[in-house]
Amino acid sequence: MSQLMFSEQSYTLLGVDVGGTNIRAMAVDQYLKVQGYLNTETDTQSNATTVDSIARAIEGVLSQASIDPAEVRGVGMGVPGQVEEGIVKLAVNLNLDGYPLASALSDRFTWMFELENDVRAAALGAYHLMTQNESIANLAYLSVGTGISAGLILNGALYRGSHGMAGEIGHMTVAPGGPKCTCGSYGCLEAVASGRATAQMAIQAVNEEKQTILAGAHPLTSELVHEAALNNDAVAKEIIQISSAYLARAIHWLIMTYDVEKVVLGGGVSHSGQAFLDPIMWQLQEIASQSDLATSMLSANKIALLPEDYDAGCWGAVLLAQRASKKGELSQLNQQRR
Amino acid sequence: MSQLMFSEQSYTLLGVDVGGTNIRAMAVDQYLKVQGYLNTETDTQSNATTVDSIARAIEGVLSQASIDPAEVRGVGMGVPGQVEEGIVKLAVNLNLDGYPLASALSDRFTWMFELENDVRAAALGAYHLMTQNESIANLAYLSVGTGISAGLILNGALYRGSHGMAGEIGHMTVAPGGPKCTCGSYGCLEAVASGRATAQMAIQAVNEEKQTILAGAHPLTSELVHEAALNNDAVAKEIIQISSAYLARAIHWLIMTYDVEKVVLGGGVSHSGQAFLDPIMWQLQEIASQSDLATSMLSANKIALLPEDYDAGCWGAVLLAQRASKKGELSQLNQQRR
Repeated sequence: MSQLMFSEQSYTLLGVDVGGTNIRAMAVDQYLKVQGYLNTETDTQSNATTVDSIARAIEGVLSQASIDPAEVRGVGMGVPGQVEEGIVKLAVNLNLDGYPLASALSDRFTWMFELENDVRAAALGAYHLMTQNESIANLAYLSVGTGISAGLILNGALYRGSHGMAGEIGHMTVAPGGPKCTCGSYGCLEAVASGRATAQMAIQAVNEEKQTILAGAHPLTSELVHEAALNNDAVAKEIIQISSAYLARAIHWLIMTYDVEKVVLGGGVSHSGQAFLDPIMWQLQEIASQSDLATSMLSANKIALLPEDYDAGCWGAVLLAQRASKKGELSQLNQQRR
Repeated sequence: MSQLMFSEQSYTLLGVDVGGTNIRAMAVDQYLKVQGYLNTETDTQSNATTVDSIARAIEGVLSQASIDPAEVRGVGMGVPGQVEEGIVKLAVNLNLDGYPLASALSDRFTWMFELENDVRAAALGAYHLMTQNESIANLAYLSVGTGISAGLILNGALYRGSHGMAGEIGHMTVAPGGPKCTCGSYGCLEAVASGRATAQMAIQAVNEEKQTILAGAHPLTSELVHEAALNNDAVAKEIIQISSAYLARAIHWLIMTYDVEKVVLGGGVSHSGQAFLDPIMWQLQEIASQSDLATSMLSANKIALLPEDYDAGCWGAVLLAQRASKKGELSQLNQQRR
């Protein structure tokens, strides 16, 4: 009986979004009310320092909100890499490959750690936001940052694929023989439309001494290119038109392949707001105008920009923790019944 | 009690694959053992003649196998169009748009009719075949015929998307500014890699008086182009290389977007067998060789060709009927319990 009562007690869920430079941690109560939130730096010198950084973020948010660690029911965590059964692979920015991060953290703390790729986790967060006032079965979250990746919510649940790789559309070939991608292939979507690619195109234009207000900017970021395009800089406008055309095609693909009701745009580059969104919407209109099928599939209300102040990564991680803790509760309940 | 016993009785399931020129119907018993199979012509002059053709196919296979219509538990049906709640839309080849085919057939017969897009239904059939000796959670079925479309089995179940359109990758823009597609857009996958596109490229080469053994062939089909390429015809080889490169990219996309364990190739063009498959596999090897990520995702054992003598469309339709009849049984059982 005491265990059944347990679910009525107040408790805390933690959501952690681990990035290569920053870690953000959020604590919420059982009603998903935010108790604490903080942003710390990541020290990726070694596996140990990375784990230390995560532990510091968790301890920091608990102490900030004066939460007793005994009240934590579970921790969800998004990490930039492939995640299978708590093992993190190919997390280049974290300096982790084949590292059992979930068990390393469970050894230090006593809670359950539910790990997921950061973009898949953010997709859960985006879905949480978009379904506050609307019923949606299928949603794609497209993250445009240094890299490009998507996360999918299908029939209301996170779809991971067979190896947790579903939505890795950044490495689809879209410009055969085009620029070399960090993955080694040529002409990947990421190599022509990511924040890195946008900045790279601008740097090249500056090096070629093209006339642009971007000359002399250090560091030359995709944000500056978006700003310059807004200010009618011809070089910047051309670059944004190129990346937007590829992103519009990617959105069209997401809609045609998954038949989703919503595509939510997020990631660092999306923080340029309307300067990021408008050129993509123009390109989508262009695609939509070509056929009845495209028109019917590409209605503008399918596309949404994630509000900059909404931390989809942390929220998604919180929801991972919630799901995992419910599963734990259920198995406890089933054990009691046996 | 009698209704519970009912599920032990022998019964028949029907699977029907309705095409623009032919209708194939299959009858199986409760153990999915084939009782009858036939192939008849479709008369698409009017809605009524199309329904008549389907009815004739159903009556034909029942009479061929001497099955009492009272033994039929349900009918599954694949149709070339968009299917929502038994309504068939955009079925250009069947001359049906917005037509309530399920209820039109239920009015004539007394059984339940479970309708699905033909490629989605065939995906279920392909999954049925591929899981006879292997456990697979996620599978994509890529149909290459006059058109191109995919069907997805995700987490063991047919994934339809929000409007039954998931997998309509034939209308993804792959060659911006390329040939006009039947949908009205330019450079769709279907416009550069389908059977129709392959034949069209060959016809154009012949019209341009290029030297090829295809000159004089009537009708000039994609099958003939594959044959000519096998016979080292330079023009045919170049055409097949173009379409294969696009199809390989489509397979790569399916694997990256859905993270499936298998991609099964089917559809009319796939009946060219190795002449169809080999050039695609070479192109996939080329993509795979570019990066570790591509190598790990594109292992050759992920790709399978549907055996020509396996009717994935009819089998998928049978499985739709089985699923619907089980649902019916369950709701009967629940009603009894109340």
